Amino acid sequence: MAGNSIGNLFVLSTFGESHGKSLGGVLDGCPAGVEVDEDFIRSEMNRRKPGQSKITTQRKEGDDFEILSGVFEGKTIGTPIGFVIKNQDQKSKDYDHIKDKFRPSHADYTYEAKYGNRDYRGGGRQSARETASRVLGGAIAKMFLNKESIRIQAYVSSVGDIKLDKNYTELDLSTTDDNIVRCPDQEVAEEMIAKIDGIRKEGNTIGGVVTCVIKNVPVGVGEPVFDKLHADLGKAMLSINAAKGFEFGSGFEGTVLKGSEHNDEFYMDGDRVATKTNLSGGIQGGISNGEDIYFNVAFKPVATIMTDQDSVNSAGEEVVVTGKGRHDPCVLPRAVPIVEAMAALVIADQLLRNTAIQKFQ
Amino acid sequence: MAGNSIGNLFVLSTFGESHGKSLGGVLDGCPAGVEVDEDFIRSEMNRRKPGQSKITTQRKEGDDFEILSGVFEGKTIGTPIGFVIKNQDQKSKDYDHIKDKFRPSHADYTYEAKYGNRDYRGGGRQSARETASRVLGGAIAKMFLNKESIRIQAYVSSVGDIKLDKNYTELDLSTTDDNIVRCPDQEVAEEMIAKIDGIRKEGNTIGGVVTCVIKNVPVGVGEPVFDKLHADLGKAMLSINAAKGFEFGSGFEGTVLKGSEHNDEFYMDGDRVATKTNLSGGIQGGISNGEDIYFNVAFKPVATIMTDQDSVNSAGEEVVVTGKGRHDPCVLPRAVPIVEAMAALVIADQLLRNTAIQKFQ
Amino acid sequence: MAGNSIGNLFVLSTFGESHGKSLGGVLDGCPAGVEVDEDFIRSEMNRRKPGQSKITTQRKEGDDFEILSGVFEGKTIGTPIGFVIKNQDQKSKDYDHIKDKFRPSHADYTYEAKYGNRDYRGGGRQSARETASRVLGGAIAKMFLNKESIRIQAYVSSVGDIKLDKNYTELDLSTTDDNIVRCPDQEVAEEMIAKIDGIRKEGNTIGGVVTCVIKNVPVGVGEPVFDKLHADLGKAMLSINAAKGFEFGSGFEGTVLKGSEHNDEFYMDGDRVATKTNLSGGIQGGISNGEDIYFNVAFKPVATIMTDQDSVNSAGEEVVVTGKGRHDPCVLPRAVPIVEAMAALVIADQLLRNTAIQKFQ
Amino acid sequence: MAGNSIGNLFVLSTFGESHGKSLGGVLDGCPAGVEVDEDFIRSEMNRRKPGQSKITTQRKEGDDFEILSGVFEGKTIGTPIGFVIKNQDQKSKDYDHIKDKFRPSHADYTYEAKYGNRDYRGGGRQSARETASRVLGGAIAKMFLNKESIRIQAYVSSVGDIKLDKNYTELDLSTTDDNIVRCPDQEVAEEMIAKIDGIRKEGNTIGGVVTCVIKNVPVGVGEPVFDKLHADLGKAMLSINAAKGFEFGSGFEGTVLKGSEHNDEFYMDGDRVATKTNLSGGIQGGISNGEDIYFNVAFKPVATIMTDQDSVNSAGEEVVVTGKGRHDPCVLPRAVPIVEAMAALVIADQLLRNTAIQKFQ
Repeated sequence: MAGNSIGNLFVLSTFGESHGKSLGGVLDGCPAGVEVDEDFIRSEMNRRKPGQSKITTQRKEGDDFEILSGVFEGKTIGTPIGFVIKNQDQKSKDYDHIKDKFRPSHADYTYEAKYGNRDYRGGGRQSARETASRVLGGAIAKMFLNKESIRIQAYVSSVGDIKLDKNYTELDLSTTDDNIVRCPDQEVAEEMIAKIDGIRKEGNTIGGVVTCVIKNVPVGVGEPVFDKLHADLGKAMLSINAAKGFEFGSGFEGTVLKGSEHNDEFYMDGDRVATKTNLSGGIQGGISNGEDIYFNVAFKPVATIMTDQDSVNSAGEEVVVTGKGRHDPCVLPRAVPIVEAMAALVIADQLLRNTAIQKFQ
Repeated sequence: MAGNSIGNLFVLSTFGESHGKSLGGVLDGCPAGVEVDEDFIRSEMNRRKPGQSKITTQRKEGDDFEILSGVFEGKTIGTPIGFVIKNQDQKSKDYDHIKDKFRPSHADYTYEAKYGNRDYRGGGRQSARETASRVLGGAIAKMFLNKESIRIQAYVSSVGDIKLDKNYTELDLSTTDDNIVRCPDQEVAEEMIAKIDGIRKEGNTIGGVVTCVIKNVPVGVGEPVFDKLHADLGKAMLSINAAKGFEFGSGFEGTVLKGSEHNDEFYMDGDRVATKTNLSGGIQGGISNGEDIYFNVAFKPVATIMTDQDSVNSAGEEVVVTGKGRHDPCVLPRAVPIVEAMAALVIADQLLRNTAIQKFQ
Repeated sequence: MAGNSIGNLFVLSTFGESHGKSLGGVLDGCPAGVEVDEDFIRSEMNRRKPGQSKITTQRKEGDDFEILSGVFEGKTIGTPIGFVIKNQDQKSKDYDHIKDKFRPSHADYTYEAKYGNRDYRGGGRQSARETASRVLGGAIAKMFLNKESIRIQAYVSSVGDIKLDKNYTELDLSTTDDNIVRCPDQEVAEEMIAKIDGIRKEGNTIGGVVTCVIKNVPVGVGEPVFDKLHADLGKAMLSINAAKGFEFGSGFEGTVLKGSEHNDEFYMDGDRVATKTNLSGGIQGGISNGEDIYFNVAFKPVATIMTDQDSVNSAGEEVVVTGKGRHDPCVLPRAVPIVEAMAALVIADQLLRNTAIQKFQ
Repeated sequence: MAGNSIGNLFVLSTFGESHGKSLGGVLDGCPAGVEVDEDFIRSEMNRRKPGQSKITTQRKEGDDFEILSGVFEGKTIGTPIGFVIKNQDQKSKDYDHIKDKFRPSHADYTYEAKYGNRDYRGGGRQSARETASRVLGGAIAKMFLNKESIRIQAYVSSVGDIKLDKNYTELDLSTTDDNIVRCPDQEVAEEMIAKIDGIRKEGNTIGGVVTCVIKNVPVGVGEPVFDKLHADLGKAMLSINAAKGFEFGSGFEGTVLKGSEHNDEFYMDGDRVATKTNLSGGIQGGISNGEDIYFNVAFKPVATIMTDQDSVNSAGEEVVVTGKGRHDPCVLPRAVPIVEAMAALVIADQLLRNTAIQKFQ
């Protein structure tokens, strides 16, 4: 398996299976002098953690982490930041029933075909538990970006057919975490919670959309051919478990507009070049233009359901798989901090890349 | 500017501004022994070429290319394939009127802010002319993939609000190029063409969606954490000019489904593990599962329109920009071969990456 | 700090300061199915460990390691192998005397200038303790290469002016570890040991050369332009602390020869293309030719000596630095396993790279 | 073939076989605003060119180059710089006699084994003609580094057993090109020239050493673990055809010294931290310390000689190879600009990497 690293100058590498000894990672390239607040990291980890509310899995994972290097006297020192996150609640026996069976729409079959083996316990490396390392790395990226006044905020904008029909500019994003589904409109949030709770009682699952907004990225960030800022963001988001789609600015809806409706006219906002509208989503030609960056990420319904499904096993026999154990009826609430973490990693990386270029011209 | 290369083992690097001497690139990592058919490359280039029909720009670009290395006696020899594509129709004066002005929703402003300069002639490096190099590299990737029986076919599935409401399995993709809009349903194609023609007469532009299908990718392709197969495809598609979104399998629509509706149950198709449905889009956990891979790419309306728009100039003054010159009313027909080329590059790269791993286990 | 990773497909990333909580790393890209023998890893770690004999530092470092992921039921499963190596003997007070002073020919000054700070305790990230992670990663690489019958053996070929004047083909490399200096000629070894012991009593240090031999690398390994096999080996060796030079095959001595003396004539050894001599060192045009690969690495004398030296401090004042603590009089004996580890990592990486290419031609 | 690119942020990719249509490359990552003097590039190319004196090959290669992109109105604009160098003197028939035979100590055999084919005409991709692209890329890197006052100067310090016994500080490097062997001591140069001329008349060849000095690199350049500044320099030098060894600072000779003799004591030179001696070669812990950087590169004798040698052919038969054509009796004079070019590429890349880190701390 290659591809366990992301970034060019600000690089996160992760390791760990869900039921092995430990998860962890290395964050390489973080500049020296960033204050590292472990309480902030912990609060970010807690937002991703299972068992946080009635609409997430009741599985308990102790996300205790330890930073092993790269931080001295409370600040980064420029060296790689190694960390581990212990696995605790390793009820491997929960997984005995699917040891040789391929769960539909999971990665059981593809892993076994690719690697000739599979750590069946809780999904092994394919488990979304891997994203704990991303949230930790992303929390450090956020602390770095905070120094540059860059803010990243995500929220749940749809659950199944319940959609928040307001734009992010009409919402108070500081209220996102006031409810357990992480939707900044408290009324819609209630509907979403009820929806998920109903789905959960059915033993079923449901998908949805996370929207993310990034403010104060300076003009000029993004390498405008293959490494366009939105292309790197898209890849990072699509690398999150259960992600099925990514769109930024006007996205898929923008495809029905005419150019005259879609173009963002420029004007001067004092000394600053600004746009009257922002269907571009803060990125033009792959480079940030100083406006807010925003995008949507689609997540499919969780594959593990509590009803019988047809499948096959490692021996090539047709079998029935029955869901068991403690699983999320909907990944959306817990996906919010993961989306933010991946966004922070991409912005930090592209910010450093842009700097190298601009210094010498 | 960094980021002019894509791929890890099968790597395309491109160079060239739209009104400079020449475009070109280097394709590194193509295995030896691939037969290189220059006529096939030319036909692929012609599908992307401006001026091919009444619904594309009337600008004429001679896409004459020359392969300079890496091919000997008609076959690749394993060395890097260098190539150039001459620029011919360089009417720089067409661009005098926007020399100091930033065209709305173009990358004029962001380039100038990032690099402290701008080759204003036809967009310079930001011009979609850069994609000619991608199509050439992708044509070679296709010839490599053909040896492995892998087929890539894209088509226009919507133009503005005219949507093809059939799934790719209900269409005969061999008829895609039978019409100038590249939609494999001839009736819908007529509507799309009429739509674009009307938009063109208004001096306006319109967006749309390209769908792409990849057949016969073997099971096991894709590195399942950050370099998931769909994450690499997503990045590649989002790096195409005017792209605003990417979704694979059930995509954004899948977010309203329940797990019980969305899961692809397994069954045995003879000796082969197969799925009854394919909402996964041929990829599970970031790894191909042997089913067809399919995805959609959203394209915004072209930014250059023939009406007055408010803008600002390099001096920070508010000005009016008026469209001029020969531009596409809709990028969709010409985007089809570009989407295929980028898909071919990604599949070739991930196929090689998977091989290295599998040989030794 | 970037650059804490080495390799393209078989990638080791390391982290950790000498007096932080822990060292560690991630080995990404190791194929599935390699048997992991922790006793072998431990024995390799012990060869590098301080305090192993009278001619190495008496500092005791507990090199207890823990593999956290990537190994299931005794075998690699294809996922990244995360590991930690605890720091135990953290006598930070040993370093109080150099807290603000720059030790001559150490990296104290350059680190502080580059990062604006310095973990002065035992050298922090610049400490050769970082190589413990390399030896662990290298041990896994060796286990992978063993499956392919590839063998890597290094030994000390000179200490100061005491040089082993035999070629590796005249030596029994299985006896290298029979003495504490790791020289496979027991008589010369005695001289080297006496030399180092004398130097140690003076409070001084001495340099030397390690020779490394790699057998059974198949023909074709190495990418022949910038990533020539010997270029990658050279970089890996030069990245070891205290390394000052690298030469392969005939090396610097070969520069005085004529072509007629230097060329390796080919002959048929049964079915195998072989060379009568091997001044090429097993590599021609950057690609292995099937003969033994061999090279030398020069190491300077350790910078920490027990006598007064002129220096400056962080405030820009001229000061005197006095050596203290427990240091190696000569790095050579402990460099042997590090050279082998780095060689194993490079060969594993290039072996995988070659595979991807050869499968499809 | 992978590995036709070098650098992380300042990246040169090259392509081209010696007897194909053209060589060329892409230089990606050069900051905008560097003045590009084509006469300077030409003069650098001429220093590498065959046929420049009686002691180089009499083969004539027209090194006419054309820059195709990335330069507008005489300056770099930040976009990738594509270029081609035409092949002209393609006397393929000169190579008919070795079409199926493997020349001893050439890469004929290893290429054919690796790629299953070989462009036998003049070595194809293995030919040192590839270095023309490096010299062109390096010339642009030099123009960039000139803006930062960084100077790179190489010279021939030995030819066979004729060694220049002066240190670079005792020489006037501005006189290096005053003689055809490129040795800055005119008397020793005469001896070297006579030596090479004698060797040439014998139909034989000879090796030697190039020394390179880099002045004014600021403190802090180099990533101090795997990408140490000298490790990157070493790899770049070892990637040059015929290179057999690399050493920096005291190098192999430093291994016989004691720490007390080898350490570079610090002192204050006004405000600047300086060292009294410079056995470190300007690099400590992989990071530049502000002193001059210097290193040696060993080159073997050219493999093509005019006498009969035993060999084998593609069919596995033992044959005799006889030298023919026009070849260098000694690569050293022409290696000087190549060493400088590779040094410039490495320093430019590491300078950019360091910048990204330092901006934010």
